[in-house]
Formats: sequence, structure tokens, C-alpha cells
Amino acid sequence: MDPRLTLVTLGVADLARASRFYEALGWTRSAYASEGVAFFQLGGLVLSLYPHTALAEDAGVAVEGSGFRGFALAHNTASRAETDAVLAEAVRAGATLVKPARDAFWGGYSGYFADPDGTLWEVAWNPDLIPRADGTVRLPA
Amino acid sequence: MDPRLTLVTLGVADLARASRFYEALGWTRSAYASEGVAFFQLGGLVLSLYPHTALAEDAGVAVEGSGFRGFALAHNTASRAETDAVLAEAVRAGATLVKPARDAFWGGYSGYFADPDGTLWEVAWNPDLIPRADGTVRLPA
Repeated sequence: MDPRLTLVTLGVADLARASRFYEALGWTRSAYASEGVAFFQLGGLVLSLYPHTALAEDAGVAVEGSGFRGFALAHNTASRAETDAVLAEAVRAGATLVKPARDAFWGGYSGYFADPDGTLWEVAWNPDLIPRADGTVRLPA
Repeated sequence: MDPRLTLVTLGVADLARASRFYEALGWTRSAYASEGVAFFQLGGLVLSLYPHTALAEDAGVAVEGSGFRGFALAHNTASRAETDAVLAEAVRAGATLVKPARDAFWGGYSGYFADPDGTLWEVAWNPDLIPRADGTVRLPA
């Protein structure tokens, strides 16, 4: 299995609301297959918003679930200032500030917001993981 | 906020077990910051395995949670045959087959496996979303 993660699907309670939030971040909803799903091109991968119930159905798993979902997406930044700015921008777009940015024990600076469905996004400045011009990151060798 | 998703963190119950699973897929655990966390470079983004409790603590959210976690990661493939092969490989590495691959209403062919912590991975052949040589995908214009 090639080391490849090409698409992340978030199950959402209200597709229009979720899509509006990511569009309010300044992201562009793709015109591709836009019936009942919303796709956003993020560099070389795709973020997909799909109704929570339909996602469970597609995988054939029970839809019931509650509480901590056990994952977080991250948006690495180039500086502490960019970290603060991105968190503020997310809040203006309708996110909940879950944790204001602060110094992290691992030497960086990070905070968290939650999207309207509670998906956790960490916004992190990690001096070892600065995004390249094309938006990708590479772990130090 | 630039359209960028640079890292995905999965909260895991047993870091060694989770890391062994992804290594058994043929993925290389990075030597970077390997104390208490496991990083895998997947093209231009990073998959991070981190103890479930520590992830909740880092975000400052309650750790309790159960049932459907409302998200899925996806591994796009170049063919139906590759889809079947990847699902079989994941199962050999210790995954649970959640849904054998079958034709999808959207014109592709996909199935799901779950990693040892229950994270859903869709393995999907989508003729509109064939991975490029560098492992990235691009939505049709």
C-alpha cells in the first residue's frame, strides 16, 4: 500500500452550513460532483464534506456516536504570528476557539479551533515543519 | 487561511500497536520526534499517531467518546484491481475489512477497512480522481 492519503471526508450534520464555513475561510468549493457533497482542493489532497448519516451508511457502520472523535486535522504555519492570525480568521468564519495558541512542550506554538461540526483543527507553528511554497510539509530526515 | 491540510493526527489506544500496523502496510515510521508519537510522511503531508488521551488533553477537550467518529481517510487508487489488492494488503497487516469493495453509485469502486483503533479508511477507485505519480490528486476543473 503506497504511503498515500488523498482525501479526508468529514461527516457533517448540515452540508450547506459546513460548506459555508469552509468557504468563509476563503477556500473554494469545487464545482465537481457538488450534489450532496462538497469538495475542496487543498494542495494535492481533497477535503470532502458529506452528510454524517450518509458516511456511516456508505461504510456500513452504525451511525451512533458521541463525544471525542479521536482525531485532529492540522494546518501548519510559518510563524507564531500566522498561527494567531489563522485562529482569529477561523473564529471570524464561525469556528469555535477551543484552545488559544500557546507555547508547546515540543518547541512550537499551537492552538485549536473546532468547525461547526466539532472537527478539531490544530493550527501549529512547528519550526521543524514549515510549509513549503506548494503547501506541503516534510519531516526532517 | 490558506487551503492547506498538512497533518492528520489519529488518537490511538496503544501507540506501539498502531505504529506496527502502519509499518506493516509498508509505511516508514519517521525517526523524527519518535518519543511518544509516531510520524509517517505521506507524500506532502504527515500522518501522526498520538495517544488518544494525550490528544484530548492537548486540545483541552473531554476524552470520553464512543461509536462512529464521523470521518474517514481515503486512499485513492488507479484501478479496481488496485483497490482490491490494497484492501487485502491492509487486512494482512491487521486491519478489519469493514466493507469489501463494490461498485459505487458515483461511478467508482470502493471499500473500507478499519485500522486497529477503528479509524475508517476508504480505498477508492474514482476514474475522475486518479493519483498522479507524486501521490497527489486533483479534482476535475
